[in-house]
Amino acid sequence: MSYQPPVREHLFLLRDVLQIEKYANLPGFADAPLDLVEQILTEAAKFSAEVLAPLNSVGDKIGCTWNADGSVTTAPGFKEAYKQFVEGGWPALGADPQYGGQGLPAVIAMASSEMSSSANMSFSMYPGLTHGAYTAIHHGGSDAQKQLYLPKLASGQWGGTMNLTEPQCGTDLGLIRTKATPAADGSYRVTGQKIWISSGEHDLAENIIHLVLARIEGAPAGTRGISLFIVPKFLPDAEGKPGQRNSVHCLGLEEKMGIHGSATCVMSHEEAVGWLVGEENRGLALMFVMMNEERLGVGMQGLAQGEAAYQAAAQFAKERLQGRSLTGPKNPDGPADPILVHPDVRRMLMDAKAVLEAGRAFLFWTALHGDLAQSDPDDGVRQKGEDYMALLTPVLKAFFTERGFQIASDAMQVHGGSGFTEHFPASQYLRDSRITMIYEGTNGVQALDLVGRKLPANGGRAVSAFMAEIDAWVDANGGDAALRPFADGLALVRGQLQEATMWLMQNGFSNPDNAIAGSADYLRLFGLTGLAYMWALIAKAASARIAGGDADPFYANKLVVGRYFLERVLPDAGAALAKVKAGAATMMALPAEAF
Amino acid sequence: MSYQPPVREHLFLLRDVLQIEKYANLPGFADAPLDLVEQILTEAAKFSAEVLAPLNSVGDKIGCTWNADGSVTTAPGFKEAYKQFVEGGWPALGADPQYGGQGLPAVIAMASSEMSSSANMSFSMYPGLTHGAYTAIHHGGSDAQKQLYLPKLASGQWGGTMNLTEPQCGTDLGLIRTKATPAADGSYRVTGQKIWISSGEHDLAENIIHLVLARIEGAPAGTRGISLFIVPKFLPDAEGKPGQRNSVHCLGLEEKMGIHGSATCVMSHEEAVGWLVGEENRGLALMFVMMNEERLGVGMQGLAQGEAAYQAAAQFAKERLQGRSLTGPKNPDGPADPILVHPDVRRMLMDAKAVLEAGRAFLFWTALHGDLAQSDPDDGVRQKGEDYMALLTPVLKAFFTERGFQIASDAMQVHGGSGFTEHFPASQYLRDSRITMIYEGTNGVQALDLVGRKLPANGGRAVSAFMAEIDAWVDANGGDAALRPFADGLALVRGQLQEATMWLMQNGFSNPDNAIAGSADYLRLFGLTGLAYMWALIAKAASARIAGGDADPFYANKLVVGRYFLERVLPDAGAALAKVKAGAATMMALPAEAF
Repeated sequence: MSYQPPVREHLFLLRDVLQIEKYANLPGFADAPLDLVEQILTEAAKFSAEVLAPLNSVGDKIGCTWNADGSVTTAPGFKEAYKQFVEGGWPALGADPQYGGQGLPAVIAMASSEMSSSANMSFSMYPGLTHGAYTAIHHGGSDAQKQLYLPKLASGQWGGTMNLTEPQCGTDLGLIRTKATPAADGSYRVTGQKIWISSGEHDLAENIIHLVLARIEGAPAGTRGISLFIVPKFLPDAEGKPGQRNSVHCLGLEEKMGIHGSATCVMSHEEAVGWLVGEENRGLALMFVMMNEERLGVGMQGLAQGEAAYQAAAQFAKERLQGRSLTGPKNPDGPADPILVHPDVRRMLMDAKAVLEAGRAFLFWTALHGDLAQSDPDDGVRQKGEDYMALLTPVLKAFFTERGFQIASDAMQVHGGSGFTEHFPASQYLRDSRITMIYEGTNGVQALDLVGRKLPANGGRAVSAFMAEIDAWVDANGGDAALRPFADGLALVRGQLQEATMWLMQNGFSNPDNAIAGSADYLRLFGLTGLAYMWALIAKAASARIAGGDADPFYANKLVVGRYFLERVLPDAGAALAKVKAGAATMMALPAEAF
Repeated sequence: MSYQPPVREHLFLLRDVLQIEKYANLPGFADAPLDLVEQILTEAAKFSAEVLAPLNSVGDKIGCTWNADGSVTTAPGFKEAYKQFVEGGWPALGADPQYGGQGLPAVIAMASSEMSSSANMSFSMYPGLTHGAYTAIHHGGSDAQKQLYLPKLASGQWGGTMNLTEPQCGTDLGLIRTKATPAADGSYRVTGQKIWISSGEHDLAENIIHLVLARIEGAPAGTRGISLFIVPKFLPDAEGKPGQRNSVHCLGLEEKMGIHGSATCVMSHEEAVGWLVGEENRGLALMFVMMNEERLGVGMQGLAQGEAAYQAAAQFAKERLQGRSLTGPKNPDGPADPILVHPDVRRMLMDAKAVLEAGRAFLFWTALHGDLAQSDPDDGVRQKGEDYMALLTPVLKAFFTERGFQIASDAMQVHGGSGFTEHFPASQYLRDSRITMIYEGTNGVQALDLVGRKLPANGGRAVSAFMAEIDAWVDANGGDAALRPFADGLALVRGQLQEATMWLMQNGFSNPDNAIAGSADYLRLFGLTGLAYMWALIAKAASARIAGGDADPFYANKLVVGRYFLERVLPDAGAALAKVKAGAATMMALPAEAF
């Protein structure tokens, strides 16, 4: 049995936990009543399970091929699947109806993208990058640019990329050297080499729209002199169709540990024709609009790989017969018991469930706040939505990519020796998931963003609102006997988060290294707090179902996994707090030559 | 700069921390004064760095080739390197002088094997398995078998393997189906298929001696009906030279995520000629002699991969220029600072050092106890040595393979996007190290062995001795101001280990699942306790040097890394204790269909 999309989980979250029907007054939600959402997600699940999942291993084993003419051929089956993907309207799910999109809330689009990412991460990166390019142009492009590019990007007819990295310049974008020279017609000529460009060249779409960071001649040094350009593979002709071939070419593909199905390209721009997006020297801010969306998506990729890996491990654990339960045989007629009877195998699977089920809730909950930030009529709700999106994007990106990789590693462990062979899917999940901790800003960069920028923004307004919301939940629900353990666990970790936040504020002023030294552990503590809050919301929703007489074990099982989270995942929060408070002194004490 | 063998670390441990000169009265040690040990390790370092390390990537990229005639060709350069390895006498370092070995203490041989494993894990597996076969025959073989096989195995002229796993039988060796039928001449005919046989077939040695688990016809079912056989690839002729080809053949190689340079074979025994080792139906006990040695070696492999990965990351962090220190530029004339200035990069490198430096001490310290168990004239010392070896083998195997993989993953993270490409060594370290958590008994099996067998053995004698030794150290050294933080940290974690041990004893009786549910976390807590003890010993040795006027920063740096361990690694112990005490109830509560 291969990947089974968790539509049941999605519907429970949307209906019972997030209660999206409350937002039927808002655009997007108005057109997506729950029965329609169920239809859409069921179709998306079918496509992911039947079309995308079978190609996952093909992409890994065959990968992409760079041809001598600079073209790139994707793995067998990818082109046909992409055609179906576009024809099914899947890329347009969350896009603006003004440009041909379906205008569904981001939280619904996220549920769909989880499934395609679990089924085939490499495949899903092509539309993922396209949607990022769509977002940047939607946010910063001229009307003409929007009219020309957005419908093609929204539909997936054209692909998109982000051209940031250069050999000397990864995280530190101030070091960009790619140059842009103004031409007489208002366009630019872009010259420079870009590396690690996902979807930089491929055979899936009829055109590829590169969004390229470059310096206009004479621009200030550093990050304040960087502009954003549209550089299409084929220059659109007068009718908006792919015309003349532009001088942007793929020089080769990167050899990587995973995501072999995704074309990671070295791109050379040689006086390529490009058009400025937004203002001169303001490119980085625009790129971050795109990047922030991608970061949330990468957090979901991490979770999605964890989910797929967990499913493979759970299946293996139910089928593989080896040893006997210590409490007496559970499969007495067979040669041995399924390894699911062994507590240490259970432990790994329960660890996964405890993070995946609440992690999905945390991602959806944040995406819903993003939807509210766009369209809620209440100023306060919109502001809170924006604050939460800004605050939580680095948390979700880093926490779920780290946990997704950990789950993939545990899933391999459940497989034993089989997991290390390439005959089982565990290796691919482990190898593919590892990149999510690195790209779109390493997890260290996320932690720096959280502690250095997002926490102090607006006098700490976002984190204060988040803690106040938790306090209100604890006050309102702590008296309910069924919810008491969840309220207690949540109050405990919220107190630890508060203590860590205060420590960073008090000690980061005197020495900024103090704040960053603990940033990764602070981010973990934040992630655990978010999970504890989500388990509280899930427990409340499940308890309400049970109290209402619903005997489906789905709900009782949620309470079990939630308790497991409290008992066996949440204790890590105390260790994270202690590490935050250790500060930078010892960490930074060794001279460079001691490494 | 590639792998630099840490001979300085080795000598500090042997001389200052373990003070091996105290044992000059014992065989082995008597012939290995420190200046000779330094010469040996310096030569081993040279061989590892100059011959083995350059072949590591070759082994990964080209791997082994299975030929249509059933032969296996190792990666280019491996055969020549193996010849040099044998000619240099390296395989014989720790072997019995009676059979051509050099008889050095195991702790010295371990230092040498760390270096070959760091330099080229796949290569080092060939002699590693050979030494395991040597140990099994040395322990259980007849005199004739010893005379025939041991000198050839000790020298590395012949290779060795362990043939355990079958498709239906991994951890649960009771399910073995391979059959052995007695022949008229006292030999047996062995028939069955074995999988995942490391070094099962290759072109390095002129003969390969398989140690094969099989059932003699009519033997009892389960683990009590398994016997151990010698099945040589070529039957030794009257002169002990490789004679007639035996009917044991390699049917193919496993496709794996890593250790591509190691030949992982499917082996088919078709009425192959074999000879019983030891008694009928007592094969498993003998195989465990071999397995236990391998397990200690695998713990060292985990650490060795962590060390190599750490070194690559440290080098990258000193060379890669990106961003600026938050406390002011450290490389003001360059375009950016080396990323080592960023606290989150430091964190990952310091995490590695805190585990590697004390981890090596813990492995050496245990190996030294193994040496004392063999040869100390004092009954009590020998017994304690045996107790510690038995108790700590599963701890060292699981803890350092888990940590080694974590360090390899952090090392990739330090590299950023470069780490995910195959142009840097980070990917190979990550992929290679992952198998160490699985083979020679998964880490879950180690935790089960620790909690289910090793803890309760002899009424808990081993763990009581370990804790008493720690108490004595704390009592003797806690009054020293320089050592106080180390004594305090050690006393704290030792108390947590005691509490966890008591909990397991009290709650494991009523329900054995309670003990196993916490076994992995208990093992982590044990590992952290061991590291805390080793940091205490290291701090004492370094402080003594400093007090004696030695101004080499090596010693002061040790105290910094030790403090970092106390501040930022040891806090995980509290979380591990909480998880142990959570028990099995919630973990085991879900029905199988909920997974």
